Amino acid sequence: MAKETTKLRILSEGARIVYEKGYNNTGIQEILAAAEVPKGSFYFYFKSKEDFGLQLIDFYLDFSVSALTAHMSASDRDPIGRLRRFFLSMQDASEQKNFKGGCPIGNLTQEMADLKDTFRIKLNQAFARMSNLIADCLDQARDLNQIAAALNPHETADFILNSWEGALLRMKAQCSVQPLVVFDRMVFEGLLKP
Amino acid sequence: MAKETTKLRILSEGARIVYEKGYNNTGIQEILAAAEVPKGSFYFYFKSKEDFGLQLIDFYLDFSVSALTAHMSASDRDPIGRLRRFFLSMQDASEQKNFKGGCPIGNLTQEMADLKDTFRIKLNQAFARMSNLIADCLDQARDLNQIAAALNPHETADFILNSWEGALLRMKAQCSVQPLVVFDRMVFEGLLKP
Repeated sequence: MAKETTKLRILSEGARIVYEKGYNNTGIQEILAAAEVPKGSFYFYFKSKEDFGLQLIDFYLDFSVSALTAHMSASDRDPIGRLRRFFLSMQDASEQKNFKGGCPIGNLTQEMADLKDTFRIKLNQAFARMSNLIADCLDQARDLNQIAAALNPHETADFILNSWEGALLRMKAQCSVQPLVVFDRMVFEGLLKP
Repeated sequence: MAKETTKLRILSEGARIVYEKGYNNTGIQEILAAAEVPKGSFYFYFKSKEDFGLQLIDFYLDFSVSALTAHMSASDRDPIGRLRRFFLSMQDASEQKNFKGGCPIGNLTQEMADLKDTFRIKLNQAFARMSNLIADCLDQARDLNQIAAALNPHETADFILNSWEGALLRMKAQCSVQPLVVFDRMVFEGLLKP
Protein backbone atom coordinates (compact mmCIF):
# COMPACT_ATOMS: atom_id res chain seq x y z
CA MET A 1 0.00 0.00 0.00
CA ALA A 2 1.37 3.44 -0.85
CA LYS A 3 2.40 5.57 2.11
CA GLU A 4 -0.19 8.26 1.63
CA THR A 5 -2.91 5.64 1.21
CA THR A 6 -2.00 4.01 4.52
CA LYS A 7 -1.93 7.31 6.39
CA LEU A 8 -5.22 8.36 4.86
CA ARG A 9 -6.78 5.02 5.79
CA ILE A 10 -5.71 5.45 9.43
CA LEU A 11 -7.11 8.99 9.47
CA SER A 12 -10.31 8.02 7.73
CA GLU A 13 -11.07 5.04 10.00
CA GLY A 14 -9.98 7.07 13.03
CA ALA A 15 -12.26 9.92 11.98
CA ARG A 16 -15.23 7.57 11.82
CA ILE A 17 -14.55 5.98 15.22
CA VAL A 18 -13.74 9.25 17.03
CA TYR A 19 -16.91 10.79 15.55
CA GLU A 20 -18.94 7.96 17.08
CA LYS A 21 -17.21 7.48 20.43
CA GLY A 22 -15.21 10.62 21.16
CA TYR A 23 -11.45 11.09 21.18
CA ASN A 24 -10.73 9.91 24.72
CA ASN A 25 -12.82 6.77 24.34
CA THR A 26 -11.03 5.71 21.15
CA GLY A 27 -7.94 3.53 21.46
CA ILE A 28 -5.14 3.38 18.91
CA GLN A 29 -5.54 -0.43 18.72
CA GLU A 30 -9.13 -0.02 17.64
CA ILE A 31 -8.19 2.38 14.85
CA LEU A 32 -5.42 0.09 13.62
CA ALA A 33 -7.72 -2.93 13.61
CA ALA A 34 -10.34 -1.01 11.58
CA ALA A 35 -7.70 0.32 9.17
CA GLU A 36 -6.06 -3.13 8.97
CA VAL A 37 -2.53 -1.84 9.46
CA PRO A 38 0.14 -2.98 11.98
CA LYS A 39 0.96 -0.91 15.07
CA GLY A 40 4.31 0.23 13.74
CA SER A 41 2.51 2.01 10.92
CA PHE A 42 0.71 4.29 13.34
CA TYR A 43 3.94 5.55 14.89
CA PHE A 44 5.51 5.91 11.48
CA TYR A 45 2.87 8.47 10.54
CA PHE A 46 1.98 9.96 13.93
CA LYS A 47 4.27 10.91 16.79
CA SER A 48 1.60 10.15 19.37
CA LYS A 49 -2.14 9.84 19.85
CA GLU A 50 -2.22 13.60 20.35
CA ASP A 51 -0.43 14.18 17.06
CA PHE A 52 -3.03 11.94 15.43
CA GLY A 53 -5.85 13.89 17.11
CA LEU A 54 -4.47 17.20 15.87
CA GLN A 55 -4.12 15.89 12.32
CA LEU A 56 -7.68 14.59 12.60
CA ILE A 57 -8.89 18.18 13.04
CA ASP A 58 -7.31 19.07 9.65
CA PHE A 59 -8.87 15.96 8.16
CA TYR A 60 -12.36 17.01 9.33
CA LEU A 61 -11.76 20.61 8.34
CA ASP A 62 -10.76 19.63 4.80
CA PHE A 63 -14.22 18.13 4.27
CA SER A 64 -16.02 21.29 5.33
CA VAL A 65 -13.65 23.59 3.46
CA SER A 66 -13.97 21.51 0.27
CA ALA A 67 -17.76 21.47 0.50
CA LEU A 68 -17.94 25.20 1.16
CA THR A 69 -15.48 26.19 -1.57
CA ALA A 70 -17.22 23.88 -4.04
CA HIS A 71 -20.49 25.72 -3.41
CA MET A 72 -18.74 29.10 -3.46
CA SER A 73 -17.11 28.53 -6.84
CA ALA A 74 -20.43 28.64 -8.70
CA SER A 75 -20.28 31.36 -11.32
CA ASP A 76 -23.66 33.00 -10.72
CA ARG A 77 -23.94 36.47 -9.16
CA ASP A 78 -25.68 35.21 -6.04
CA PRO A 79 -23.17 34.67 -3.20
CA ILE A 80 -25.92 34.50 -0.54
CA GLY A 81 -27.76 31.85 -2.56
CA ARG A 82 -24.53 29.84 -2.71
CA LEU A 83 -24.03 30.09 1.03
CA ARG A 84 -27.62 29.05 1.64
CA ARG A 85 -27.24 26.04 -0.64
CA PHE A 86 -24.10 25.01 1.27
CA PHE A 87 -26.00 24.97 4.58
CA LEU A 88 -28.95 23.17 2.97
CA SER A 89 -26.54 20.49 1.71
CA MET A 90 -25.26 20.12 5.29
CA GLN A 91 -28.88 19.83 6.40
CA ASP A 92 -29.38 16.98 3.92
CA ALA A 93 -26.24 15.29 5.23
CA SER A 94 -27.56 15.55 8.81
CA GLU A 95 -30.87 14.07 7.73
CA GLN A 96 -29.03 11.12 6.20
CA LYS A 97 -27.35 10.55 9.57
CA ASN A 98 -30.76 10.60 11.31
CA PHE A 99 -29.82 13.85 13.06
CA LYS A 100 -27.07 12.14 15.03
CA GLY A 101 -23.39 12.98 15.22
CA GLY A 102 -23.50 16.71 14.61
CA CYS A 103 -20.30 18.59 13.76
CA PRO A 104 -17.06 16.62 14.34
CA ILE A 105 -15.15 19.85 15.03
CA GLY A 106 -17.84 21.05 17.43
CA ASN A 107 -17.78 17.67 19.18
CA LEU A 108 -14.00 17.77 19.61
CA THR A 109 -14.26 21.33 20.92
CA GLN A 110 -16.79 20.27 23.51
CA GLU A 111 -14.63 17.33 24.54
CA MET A 112 -11.08 18.65 24.27
CA ALA A 113 -10.87 22.47 24.25
CA ASP A 114 -10.84 22.79 28.04
CA LEU A 115 -8.53 19.82 28.50
CA LYS A 116 -5.68 20.41 26.06
CA ASP A 117 -4.53 23.77 24.77
CA THR A 118 -2.91 22.19 21.68
CA PHE A 119 -6.35 20.97 20.65
CA ARG A 120 -8.06 24.24 21.58
CA ILE A 121 -5.68 26.30 19.44
CA LYS A 122 -6.05 24.00 16.44
CA LEU A 123 -9.86 23.89 16.80
CA ASN A 124 -9.94 27.65 17.08
CA GLN A 125 -7.97 27.91 13.82
CA ALA A 126 -10.39 25.50 12.15
CA PHE A 127 -13.39 27.63 13.12
CA ALA A 128 -11.56 30.79 12.01
CA ARG A 129 -10.86 29.21 8.61
CA MET A 130 -14.53 28.39 8.05
CA SER A 131 -15.62 31.78 9.32
CA ASN A 132 -13.22 33.56 6.95
CA LEU A 133 -14.66 31.70 3.98
CA ILE A 134 -18.16 32.75 5.00
CA ALA A 135 -16.94 36.33 5.49
CA ASP A 136 -15.50 36.33 1.93
CA CYS A 137 -18.93 35.36 0.66
CA LEU A 138 -20.60 38.13 2.68
CA ASP A 139 -18.04 40.61 1.34
CA GLN A 140 -18.99 39.69 -2.21
CA ALA A 141 -22.68 40.00 -1.32
CA ARG A 142 -22.09 43.44 0.15
CA ASP A 143 -20.31 44.59 -2.98
CA LEU A 144 -23.41 43.52 -4.91
CA ASN A 145 -25.71 45.30 -2.39
CA GLN A 146 -27.30 41.99 -1.50
CA ILE A 147 -26.96 42.45 2.26
CA ALA A 148 -27.34 45.49 4.48
CA ALA A 149 -24.23 47.69 4.34
CA ALA A 150 -24.40 47.97 8.14
CA LEU A 151 -23.55 44.29 8.61
CA ASN A 152 -19.92 43.65 9.48
CA PRO A 153 -18.96 40.64 7.29
CA HIS A 154 -16.56 39.13 9.83
CA GLU A 155 -18.84 39.43 12.84
CA THR A 156 -21.80 38.25 10.82
CA ALA A 157 -19.82 35.26 9.54
CA ASP A 158 -18.82 34.35 13.10
CA PHE A 159 -22.40 34.66 14.26
CA ILE A 160 -23.69 32.50 11.39
CA LEU A 161 -21.08 29.79 11.99
CA ASN A 162 -21.64 29.74 15.76
CA SER A 163 -25.41 29.68 15.31
CA TRP A 164 -25.03 26.75 12.95
CA GLU A 165 -22.99 24.89 15.57
CA GLY A 166 -25.71 25.60 18.12
CA ALA A 167 -28.42 24.44 15.71
CA LEU A 168 -26.54 21.15 15.24
CA LEU A 169 -26.31 20.70 19.01
CA ARG A 170 -30.04 21.33 19.46
CA MET A 171 -30.72 18.95 16.56
CA LYS A 172 -29.07 16.17 18.55
CA ALA A 173 -31.35 16.84 21.54
CA GLN A 174 -34.45 17.15 19.40
CA CYS A 175 -33.54 14.39 16.94
CA SER A 176 -35.22 16.45 14.24
CA VAL A 177 -34.43 18.77 11.36
CA GLN A 178 -36.38 21.64 12.99
CA PRO A 179 -33.38 23.55 14.47
CA LEU A 180 -31.68 23.50 11.05
CA VAL A 181 -34.83 24.71 9.31
CA VAL A 182 -35.17 27.53 11.84
CA PHE A 183 -31.51 28.43 11.28
CA ASP A 184 -32.06 28.59 7.52
CA ARG A 185 -35.15 30.77 7.84
CA MET A 186 -33.80 33.15 10.49
CA VAL A 187 -30.45 33.66 8.76
CA PHE A 188 -31.48 33.78 5.11
CA GLU A 189 -34.96 35.27 5.36
CA GLY A 190 -34.22 37.55 8.31
CA LEU A 191 -30.67 38.44 9.29
CA LEU A 192 -29.20 38.71 5.78
CA LYS A 193 -32.17 40.39 4.09
CA PRO A 194 -31.12 43.88 3.01
CA MET B 1 -28.10 15.73 58.02
CA ALA B 2 -31.66 16.20 56.76
CA LYS B 3 -32.67 14.02 53.80
CA GLU B 4 -33.10 16.84 51.34
CA THR B 5 -29.76 18.33 52.34
CA THR B 6 -27.96 15.04 51.67
CA LYS B 7 -29.61 14.58 48.30
CA LEU B 8 -28.87 18.15 47.33
CA ARG B 9 -25.26 17.75 48.38
CA ILE B 10 -24.85 14.66 46.19
CA LEU B 11 -26.42 16.52 43.26
CA SER B 12 -24.41 19.65 43.83
CA GLU B 13 -21.04 17.87 44.12
CA GLY B 14 -22.00 15.59 41.23
CA ALA B 15 -22.95 18.61 39.11
CA ARG B 16 -19.54 20.17 39.69
CA ILE B 17 -17.60 17.00 38.85
CA VAL B 18 -19.69 16.05 35.79
CA TYR B 19 -19.35 19.64 34.52
CA GLU B 20 -15.56 19.27 34.70
CA LYS B 21 -15.06 15.70 33.51
CA GLY B 22 -18.20 14.64 31.68
CA TYR B 23 -20.86 12.14 32.75
CA ASN B 24 -19.18 8.95 31.55
CA ASN B 25 -15.85 9.83 33.13
CA THR B 26 -17.39 10.50 36.54
CA GLY B 27 -17.69 7.59 38.97
CA ILE B 28 -20.27 7.32 41.74
CA GLN B 29 -17.47 6.76 44.27
CA GLU B 30 -15.92 10.08 43.35
CA ILE B 31 -19.18 11.93 43.86
CA LEU B 32 -19.77 10.24 47.22
CA ALA B 33 -16.27 11.08 48.40
CA ALA B 34 -16.71 14.74 47.43
CA ALA B 35 -20.16 14.90 49.07
CA GLU B 36 -18.88 13.00 52.12
CA VAL B 37 -21.76 10.56 52.25
CA PRO B 38 -21.70 6.72 52.42
CA LYS B 39 -22.50 4.60 49.36
CA GLY B 40 -25.87 3.46 50.72
CA SER B 41 -27.01 7.07 50.61
CA PHE B 42 -26.58 7.27 46.86
CA TYR B 43 -28.88 4.32 46.22
CA PHE B 44 -31.36 5.64 48.76
CA TYR B 45 -31.85 8.75 46.63
CA PHE B 46 -31.08 7.47 43.13
CA LYS B 47 -32.11 4.18 41.54
CA SER B 48 -28.95 4.09 39.40
CA LYS B 49 -26.25 6.29 37.91
CA GLU B 50 -28.62 6.96 35.03
CA ASP B 51 -31.35 8.09 37.41
CA PHE B 52 -28.79 10.42 38.99
CA GLY B 53 -27.77 11.74 35.55
CA LEU B 54 -31.38 12.48 34.62
CA GLN B 55 -31.99 14.30 37.91
CA LEU B 56 -28.80 16.23 37.27
CA ILE B 57 -30.37 17.69 34.12
CA ASP B 58 -33.19 19.10 36.27
CA PHE B 59 -30.63 20.40 38.74
CA TYR B 60 -28.77 22.30 36.00
CA LEU B 61 -32.01 23.47 34.41
CA ASP B 62 -33.25 24.92 37.71
CA PHE B 63 -30.27 27.28 37.78
CA SER B 64 -30.95 28.63 34.31
CA VAL B 65 -34.70 28.84 34.82
CA SER B 66 -34.25 30.67 38.14
CA ALA B 67 -31.79 33.13 36.63
CA LEU B 68 -34.01 33.78 33.62
CA THR B 69 -37.23 34.16 35.60
CA ALA B 70 -35.47 36.44 38.10
CA HIS B 71 -34.49 38.74 35.23
CA MET B 72 -37.93 38.45 33.64
CA SER B 73 -39.80 39.43 36.80
CA ALA B 74 -38.50 43.03 36.68
CA SER B 75 -41.44 45.40 36.59
CA ASP B 76 -40.25 47.74 33.82
CA ARG B 77 -41.91 47.78 30.41
CA ASP B 78 -38.80 46.56 28.61
CA PRO B 79 -38.93 42.77 28.10
CA ILE B 80 -36.13 42.83 25.49
CA GLY B 81 -33.90 44.80 27.87
CA ARG B 82 -34.55 42.15 30.54
CA LEU B 83 -33.65 39.33 28.15
CA ARG B 84 -30.49 41.13 27.13
CA ARG B 85 -29.49 41.63 30.78
CA PHE B 86 -30.01 37.91 31.39
CA PHE B 87 -27.59 36.98 28.60
CA LEU B 88 -25.12 39.64 29.76
CA SER B 89 -25.22 38.13 33.25
CA MET B 90 -24.44 34.73 31.71
CA GLN B 91 -21.57 36.41 29.83
CA ASP B 92 -20.21 37.69 33.16
CA ALA B 93 -20.50 34.19 34.63
CA SER B 94 -18.54 32.77 31.67
CA GLU B 95 -15.87 35.40 32.15
CA GLN B 96 -15.53 34.38 35.80
CA LYS B 97 -14.93 30.80 34.64
CA ASN B 98 -12.21 32.02 32.25
CA PHE B 99 -14.39 31.03 29.27
CA LYS B 100 -14.19 27.35 30.18
CA GLY B 101 -16.97 24.89 30.87
CA GLY B 102 -19.71 26.35 28.71
CA CYS B 103 -23.31 25.21 29.17
CA PRO B 104 -23.74 22.07 31.32
CA ILE B 105 -26.90 21.11 29.42
CA GLY B 106 -25.18 21.66 26.07
CA ASN B 107 -22.23 19.57 27.25
CA LEU B 108 -24.49 16.68 28.32
CA THR B 109 -26.30 16.91 24.99
CA GLN B 110 -23.04 16.64 23.10
CA GLU B 111 -21.95 13.68 25.23
CA MET B 112 -25.17 11.75 25.83
CA ALA B 113 -27.95 12.61 23.34
CA ASP B 114 -26.80 10.13 20.71
CA LEU B 115 -25.99 7.43 23.27
CA LYS B 116 -29.09 7.26 25.50
CA ASP B 117 -32.59 8.21 24.48
CA THR B 118 -33.64 8.76 28.11
CA PHE B 119 -31.04 11.54 28.32
CA ARG B 120 -31.90 12.92 24.91
CA ILE B 121 -35.59 13.25 25.75
CA LYS B 122 -34.88 14.94 29.08
CA LEU B 123 -32.31 17.30 27.52
CA ASN B 124 -34.77 18.14 24.76
CA GLN B 125 -37.37 19.04 27.40
CA ALA B 126 -34.82 21.22 29.20
CA PHE B 127 -34.07 23.20 26.02
CA ALA B 128 -37.80 23.50 25.29
CA ARG B 129 -38.41 24.88 28.78
CA MET B 130 -35.77 27.60 28.32
CA SER B 131 -36.97 28.37 24.82
CA ASN B 132 -40.57 28.76 26.02
CA LEU B 133 -39.49 31.28 28.65
CA ILE B 134 -37.67 33.29 26.00
CA ALA B 135 -40.72 33.04 23.72
CA ASP B 136 -42.93 34.43 26.53
CA CYS B 137 -40.61 37.41 26.73
CA LEU B 138 -40.74 37.94 22.95
CA ASP B 139 -44.54 37.69 23.09
CA GLN B 140 -44.62 40.52 25.63
CA ALA B 141 -42.23 42.55 23.48
CA ARG B 142 -44.41 42.03 20.44
CA ASP B 143 -47.49 43.21 22.33
CA LEU B 144 -45.55 46.38 23.13
CA ASN B 145 -44.42 46.73 19.48
CA GLN B 146 -40.79 46.38 20.55
CA ILE B 147 -39.94 43.73 17.94
CA ALA B 148 -41.01 43.29 14.34
CA ALA B 149 -44.50 41.80 14.10
CA ALA B 150 -43.20 39.42 11.43
CA LEU B 151 -40.97 37.57 13.91
CA ASN B 152 -42.47 34.30 15.13
CA PRO B 153 -41.79 34.33 18.92
CA HIS B 154 -41.29 30.57 19.22
CA GLU B 155 -38.97 30.19 16.24
CA THR B 156 -37.06 33.30 17.23
CA ALA B 157 -36.69 32.02 20.79
CA ASP B 158 -35.37 28.69 19.50
CA PHE B 159 -32.92 30.47 17.22
CA ILE B 160 -31.69 32.73 20.04
CA LEU B 161 -31.23 29.83 22.45
CA ASN B 162 -29.45 27.66 19.87
CA SER B 163 -27.23 30.55 18.79
CA TRP B 164 -26.31 31.13 22.42
CA GLU B 165 -25.32 27.46 22.77
CA GLY B 166 -23.17 27.80 19.64
CA ALA B 167 -21.59 31.00 20.97
CA LEU B 168 -20.65 29.17 24.19
CA LEU B 169 -19.09 26.36 22.16
CA ARG B 170 -17.05 28.79 20.07
CA MET B 171 -16.05 30.59 23.27
CA LYS B 172 -14.41 27.38 24.49
CA ALA B 173 -12.36 27.13 21.29
CA GLN B 174 -11.44 30.80 21.29
CA CYS B 175 -11.01 31.12 25.06
CA SER B 176 -12.39 34.64 24.77
CA VAL B 177 -15.56 36.63 25.33
CA GLN B 178 -15.73 37.63 21.66
CA PRO B 179 -18.35 35.05 20.51
CA LEU B 180 -20.65 36.16 23.36
CA VAL B 181 -20.17 39.83 22.49
CA VAL B 182 -20.98 39.09 18.84
CA PHE B 183 -24.07 37.15 19.96
CA ASP B 184 -25.23 40.12 22.04
CA ARG B 185 -24.72 42.60 19.23
CA MET B 186 -26.21 40.51 16.42
CA VAL B 187 -29.28 39.48 18.43
CA PHE B 188 -30.07 42.69 20.30
CA GLU B 189 -28.88 45.32 17.84
CA GLY B 190 -29.79 43.38 14.70
CA LEU B 191 -32.27 40.51 14.79
CA LEU B 192 -34.65 41.93 17.41
CA LYS B 193 -34.61 45.56 16.25
CA PRO B 194 -38.07 46.48 14.97
